[in-house]
Amino acid sequence: MSERAARLALSCVVEPATVAVTEQVAQWGAEQVWEALRNGSGPEPLTRRAQEFRVEPVVARAEASGMRFVVPGDPEWPLGLADLEGCEPVNDLSGSPLGLWVRGGGDLAMLARRSVAVVGARACSAYGETIAGELAAELSRSGVTTVSGGAYGIDAAAHRGCLASRSATVAILACGLDRSYPPAHRPLFERIAEDGVLVSEFPPGAHPTRVRFLGRNRLIAAMTQVTVIVEAAVRSGARNTVTWANCLNRVVAAVPGSIYSVQSYTPHRLVREAEAVLVTSAAEVLELLAPLGRGVPRAKAERRATDDFSPEQLAVYESVPSRGGLSVEELSLRSGVPLAVCLGILDELSEQGAVEQDESWQWRLPRRRRAQTPLF
Amino acid sequence: MSERAARLALSCVVEPATVAVTEQVAQWGAEQVWEALRNGSGPEPLTRRAQEFRVEPVVARAEASGMRFVVPGDPEWPLGLADLEGCEPVNDLSGSPLGLWVRGGGDLAMLARRSVAVVGARACSAYGETIAGELAAELSRSGVTTVSGGAYGIDAAAHRGCLASRSATVAILACGLDRSYPPAHRPLFERIAEDGVLVSEFPPGAHPTRVRFLGRNRLIAAMTQVTVIVEAAVRSGARNTVTWANCLNRVVAAVPGSIYSVQSYTPHRLVREAEAVLVTSAAEVLELLAPLGRGVPRAKAERRATDDFSPEQLAVYESVPSRGGLSVEELSLRSGVPLAVCLGILDELSEQGAVEQDESWQWRLPRRRRAQTPLF
Repeated sequence: MSERAARLALSCVVEPATVAVTEQVAQWGAEQVWEALRNGSGPEPLTRRAQEFRVEPVVARAEASGMRFVVPGDPEWPLGLADLEGCEPVNDLSGSPLGLWVRGGGDLAMLARRSVAVVGARACSAYGETIAGELAAELSRSGVTTVSGGAYGIDAAAHRGCLASRSATVAILACGLDRSYPPAHRPLFERIAEDGVLVSEFPPGAHPTRVRFLGRNRLIAAMTQVTVIVEAAVRSGARNTVTWANCLNRVVAAVPGSIYSVQSYTPHRLVREAEAVLVTSAAEVLELLAPLGRGVPRAKAERRATDDFSPEQLAVYESVPSRGGLSVEELSLRSGVPLAVCLGILDELSEQGAVEQDESWQWRLPRRRRAQTPLF
Repeated sequence: MSERAARLALSCVVEPATVAVTEQVAQWGAEQVWEALRNGSGPEPLTRRAQEFRVEPVVARAEASGMRFVVPGDPEWPLGLADLEGCEPVNDLSGSPLGLWVRGGGDLAMLARRSVAVVGARACSAYGETIAGELAAELSRSGVTTVSGGAYGIDAAAHRGCLASRSATVAILACGLDRSYPPAHRPLFERIAEDGVLVSEFPPGAHPTRVRFLGRNRLIAAMTQVTVIVEAAVRSGARNTVTWANCLNRVVAAVPGSIYSVQSYTPHRLVREAEAVLVTSAAEVLELLAPLGRGVPRAKAERRATDDFSPEQLAVYESVPSRGGLSVEELSLRSGVPLAVCLGILDELSEQGAVEQDESWQWRLPRRRRAQTPLF
């Protein structure tokens, strides 16, 4: 069984962003975790679900809806998700997704490359709805993709703003992509899928649940460079997306409004508490985006070795699988970096200790230095 | 001629906040500056105006309108004005006022003790007008005085909010207090004068001019602990008050509003540039006020010897005249500190070098250490 097939199978039986599982997969690889579950090691409900799992109906359902399954290392895998690895758990959720179900004519990695999350209340005001739509439309004119959820209110207004200016947009859902939640948004989702993409961690048929919305929020924050809160009342899911954005050292921006509007409570509070920058226009959001091809500033973050990588070094490094090894030819193919250049880069990376070569000349990530945790 | 009479005369012939004059007065005292002008030393228009000056008509006019003239050291002199001494010039204006013309039933020093400046656009929106009125009314319920100008828009709305909740308010005008500018505000000013005060640096009969508005703004900022900008367009006098507040290390707060309102441009800009704290309620403004009896936090300011003074030490220190000396009996009377306590405090202060005793046992401020500037 391949790493990809194991990730697909795991994504069908394991609730995503479950700390225990994401840590096991990071440590042992998806294949070994999957085999362990199939052989009855691991907690009860999981092992039973793994043993009863049949891949064929899932694949058939995914194909019928035109879904593809994307895993880390694939060209369409968004780079920003890597930051979820070092991120503290929020609501007991953590880690990078095992894989992503994607549907639509757009290329997820390309769309996410320069992107802004526009999020906020379902029960927004006409003021918030107007701003979300105009902001998304103006950002798209500067080549910046809007990423949001699929809910009523700010989410839908942001997507509609992009679509009205004939731009691709990314909707990240908390259910299987063959479902529509809310059902009334089926036509909207179909339009998004034309040039943009629908994205989900959840397999075909999965229902949305509260915890899935929380897990989904981490993808919205991680996949984008800036999170903009347009409107949100005291208690709001958008607040959870801000928590993720802060953990991920993403810039958070908030749009002001009337002090008499309950929907401007959270934006104002975030600005007052210095958790968000006040923005009043698309131009001010664009100022917050790092220049093309560079990461966002990580004032609070630990420095990482990859911060100083050139785009080509990063491409090669990202194409090394998290588990197992690949030949230089395979890495060149995956990364799109010519073979000769790829060889030179692998030498540089191994000098820095970022990659290593095993006895069969395959390139792999160095063994983690932390103590090995038992496999279940 | 007394120091008070000299200050009154100077305030009638010299444009206030003129750097050259305020420095001369700080250095030599008002009496000597006035004598020099009368004797023909000094720049031409000033000396001629000094020589032609007759005090009687001014006093008659002031008495007819029920004005009083307050000078530094008087019980009604607001403590905050002392901070203007060390403040950099703004628009070539600087320095503490020579004296203040005051009219009304309130005690200026008492009213200014815990006070907030509520300022903003003349051409404000209904939104801004509502906020200014409500903010002023709610602040007054917590014993905090609202200080503002006398203009249409935010200024008037703030005063009306106080008056509606039967509270005293302070209006600082850029013309003589026997005038009304704008004329339509005559009834408003009369109501303010009942329990509050009208204040001006300018003698009876003085017309408002552009430079006088700028000089007036420094008094609004200096006399209060917090300046709140409710609404202001790109170009606005309120911006000038903020500049003074920043120079004086006063806290500046700004009220957010619609991103589509031109009148919220300056509040949003101030928050974005970290020149102002975003506030959405009177409670949030109260949080910014320092506890009773203490100065505002001076994060950016130089430390001053007076920062560590006890309230009694401060009262005695403030009662020492800026020019000339006084006996301990006079200082006890002025400061309201019992004679025995006053003696002990003067000893402490002289040990710190804050005051000194001259050969005739009078207490005075130590001679300034900077090089003496010539008297004109």
